[in-house]
Amino acid sequence: MKELKTGITTPKGFEAAGEHIGIKNKKKDLAIIFSKTPALCSAVFTQNLVKAPPLAFCQETLADGNKIQAIIINSGNANACTGKQGYKDAVETVAELAKSLNISEKSILVTSTGVIGVFLPMETMIKGIKPTASKLSSSRKSATDCAEAIMTTDTFVKEVSVEIDIDGTPVTISGIAKGSGMIHPNMATMLGFLTTDANITQELLDKAFKTAIFSSFNMISVDGETSTNDMAVILANGEAKNQTIDSENENYKKFAQAVDFVCKELAKKIVLDGEGASKFLEVHIDGAKTDDDAKILCKSIINSNLVKTAFFGQDANWGRIISAMGASGASFDPNKVKIRFENKIGDVLLYENGLPVDFDEDFALKILKEKQINLLVEMQEGNSSIIGWGCDLSYDYVKINASYRT
Amino acid sequence: MKELKTGITTPKGFEAAGEHIGIKNKKKDLAIIFSKTPALCSAVFTQNLVKAPPLAFCQETLADGNKIQAIIINSGNANACTGKQGYKDAVETVAELAKSLNISEKSILVTSTGVIGVFLPMETMIKGIKPTASKLSSSRKSATDCAEAIMTTDTFVKEVSVEIDIDGTPVTISGIAKGSGMIHPNMATMLGFLTTDANITQELLDKAFKTAIFSSFNMISVDGETSTNDMAVILANGEAKNQTIDSENENYKKFAQAVDFVCKELAKKIVLDGEGASKFLEVHIDGAKTDDDAKILCKSIINSNLVKTAFFGQDANWGRIISAMGASGASFDPNKVKIRFENKIGDVLLYENGLPVDFDEDFALKILKEKQINLLVEMQEGNSSIIGWGCDLSYDYVKINASYRT
Repeated sequence: MKELKTGITTPKGFEAAGEHIGIKNKKKDLAIIFSKTPALCSAVFTQNLVKAPPLAFCQETLADGNKIQAIIINSGNANACTGKQGYKDAVETVAELAKSLNISEKSILVTSTGVIGVFLPMETMIKGIKPTASKLSSSRKSATDCAEAIMTTDTFVKEVSVEIDIDGTPVTISGIAKGSGMIHPNMATMLGFLTTDANITQELLDKAFKTAIFSSFNMISVDGETSTNDMAVILANGEAKNQTIDSENENYKKFAQAVDFVCKELAKKIVLDGEGASKFLEVHIDGAKTDDDAKILCKSIINSNLVKTAFFGQDANWGRIISAMGASGASFDPNKVKIRFENKIGDVLLYENGLPVDFDEDFALKILKEKQINLLVEMQEGNSSIIGWGCDLSYDYVKINASYRT
Repeated sequence: MKELKTGITTPKGFEAAGEHIGIKNKKKDLAIIFSKTPALCSAVFTQNLVKAPPLAFCQETLADGNKIQAIIINSGNANACTGKQGYKDAVETVAELAKSLNISEKSILVTSTGVIGVFLPMETMIKGIKPTASKLSSSRKSATDCAEAIMTTDTFVKEVSVEIDIDGTPVTISGIAKGSGMIHPNMATMLGFLTTDANITQELLDKAFKTAIFSSFNMISVDGETSTNDMAVILANGEAKNQTIDSENENYKKFAQAVDFVCKELAKKIVLDGEGASKFLEVHIDGAKTDDDAKILCKSIINSNLVKTAFFGQDANWGRIISAMGASGASFDPNKVKIRFENKIGDVLLYENGLPVDFDEDFALKILKEKQINLLVEMQEGNSSIIGWGCDLSYDYVKINASYRT
């Protein structure tokens, strides 16, 4: 697998565009991803019971087993908690794009991110779609324009691309994402879009994507909040013309690994760009009894406000870590747990055998002064391991999220 | 039921003391609660799997069915994550108090709150116990000294007392608590101690206390963290000489209501004194399908960082509330939900029928500028209701909890 410094139009047959149409004041706010040929699609939607209307529309389109040719995404307005009107607006958006691109409405996904509880400015939307569609291209610039147009409070563009070799045929997989950032005014949303020219069956595309999601987007946390608009999608148009990946052989493994890599890199970028984040925390749980236990323990640590504020304060406060684990609901023997911090500076053991270790505070502080810190937690109970990513809780997080909507 | 402006020594036969013995720099750090006659005891301990050694000691003592005559509490050091040594230290503390008071070691509970992962300074403890025990009295001052000596980052003393009439005999119930505040450096802990001179059976004491805990201490949240040391205890010594409350009659109801009142008032004081809190939020869930749903929805709202920062920012951000509810795991129809804010200024409806209400932002801001805000959430799904209390998430919360341990 080779990492490329390119964007979402790298896979053959994909085009993209990102423009400012006037939903936001100045920044790009409308993005389109387009595949010249209909593509297989796999998608994952928010677990939040309160789903934004565009997500319901997408779920219906995909339930019918349609191939997908385009995804349209606006930022600046989440079209969430907007009821029947919101659904109608999603339908109209899709109809306008179908007309502009001369493709079926059934081959289009639509989503939104931004303010919650405000109706989409449909005049602006409709007026902006055709001009944006006319800018679709496979250029490097169009790819980045597209990645930029889905951003809300994100401070940098999130693009990842890789190339793999399938029996001598190069296959590429690319992705963009936007962060779990609260918009001025409102709603946290995580969006991820992947494109690939791989030729693969629907079943294996689903399997590779859903497995990757589990250990990437589902293992990050900025503030423990699940938005009404979270969504991740992969389109596979087969344009690489590789021999179809139709069994779980070496080729599938290569593909799945590449998808996993793209998802994880995007997920990590989201955390790196977490609202107000000054620290990037990678939490390793090793030797847990079950996969579920590993996940619960990991998430309990990265979601703990006390753990997060301690890292903001550069405090080697292992007590908050073991306490967050104890409160997680997972069952384990605290006397078997080992906790250490580690990064490029070195590593320090803080807790073992149910007791604090008499560690070098000055050295621990050196480790904690770095941007990235790895928390290594050994459970010594079984063989399940997992990695999760999170960030600290800073004054800036409170500042960003305490802003008035208006 | 009559509320009294008195402390934990109001019930007949109880004495208390609180002194500075040197665990903390200057503030009172050792508290003793004493009943002249052995009392029935009911207790609830933290759900955190990682329990501090003194809690294990107390659970063993109570499992043997012993009556209790004294509780000794130190602040400044939680004796948590201290393993066998921590347990031994708890045993020694109890032995010293037993000697000082000439009572059985089996009639003493012990607990600690403060820094985690540091061994108790046993020389200081042992030296301080007898002098503190010698100060035991039923005076108003002793009651407050005791309430003060269990404090960590609390900014005010938490005392509540009530009197009820049982067939013409006055019965009193009093309580003190300390807040879910992180200590400089470390651990959040909630402690609550109640005394009563009621004459009641063990079974009904347990029932009244556990029911009260469910809707008071268990329905508050400062930061969603469950400490290793959380504990609530009630002692009932029967010294009021009322006819024994031994069936669920009117007298039991009076008693249970009084215990519920004391627990709820203490719980609310803890939230009012939450670290860095500038707002007091009372969340009402009405008409939920089940009691569990009501509780889950309520807790999801009061634990949401996004909801909490919005209140800090005085932002009528109902979108974060419906989103926190949707992410809670409870099942409900968002289209039936009504959300309103209310307090002494008035009330404002923000969301109904799955849609935002066009409300008066200026008036909403007036409501939100007050210290106390009630969030009224109508589910229109069933008959279960619950009330919970929380606070906002402020710069000061981050500041307090980002402090170095050292």
